[in-house]
Amino acid sequence: PVPGSDQVNMPTQLEIAMNIMIRIFHQYSCKEGDRFKLNKGELKMLLQQELTEFLSCQKDPQLVDKIMQDLDANKDNEVDFNEFVVMVAALTVACNDYFVEQLKKKGK
Amino acid sequence: PVPGSDQVNMPTQLEIAMNIMIRIFHQYSCKEGDRFKLNKGELKMLLQQELTEFLSCQKDPQLVDKIMQDLDANKDNEVDFNEFVVMVAALTVACNDYFVEQLKKKGK
Repeated sequence: PVPGSDQVNMPTQLEIAMNIMIRIFHQYSCKEGDRFKLNKGELKMLLQQELTEFLSCQKDPQLVDKIMQDLDANKDNEVDFNEFVVMVAALTVACNDYFVEQLKKKGK
Repeated sequence: PVPGSDQVNMPTQLEIAMNIMIRIFHQYSCKEGDRFKLNKGELKMLLQQELTEFLSCQKDPQLVDKIMQDLDANKDNEVDFNEFVVMVAALTVACNDYFVEQLKKKGK
């Protein structure tokens, strides 16, 4: 084998971000009921404890309510990992829009 | 004002993950052409440099090729932030599926 070829590489920033999403979901989903899904209480706790500051930057106090309503719509009161990641993606797009808008305001 | 109410709170892990996705995208999208979109070269560079290790864990060497083909399908050869986040979300779901499968194999 090539020397050093079996070394463990450090994860990249993006890999760290993906690992965080997986870890955070399971940290809350395992609290009660189906340990691979968030029930309403677990989701609320996750949003309040993990996204408070970020959501406040968005200056849209109704954003969490809107998310909860969307999740209510499918009536199973459970959020699987797929739905969770889609939610995080949507929030991240909203934050990026805000970021880009600020950049464009600054000119150039 | 309440003492301490104006303190800057540390970002949560999930907020850090969202910030990473935004920062990484712009780090590559600003290299050439439209600085708010990834062209094919920028996307390829991002995948190779930021997701190599993670993708290799997935044991699916064709995953990046599949992603590139999907992106080819819309023929504009540009990836905006929304498309990028959807891709990261899909990859994270694949990784979570693998993680959950391992957990279930271990029993309990």
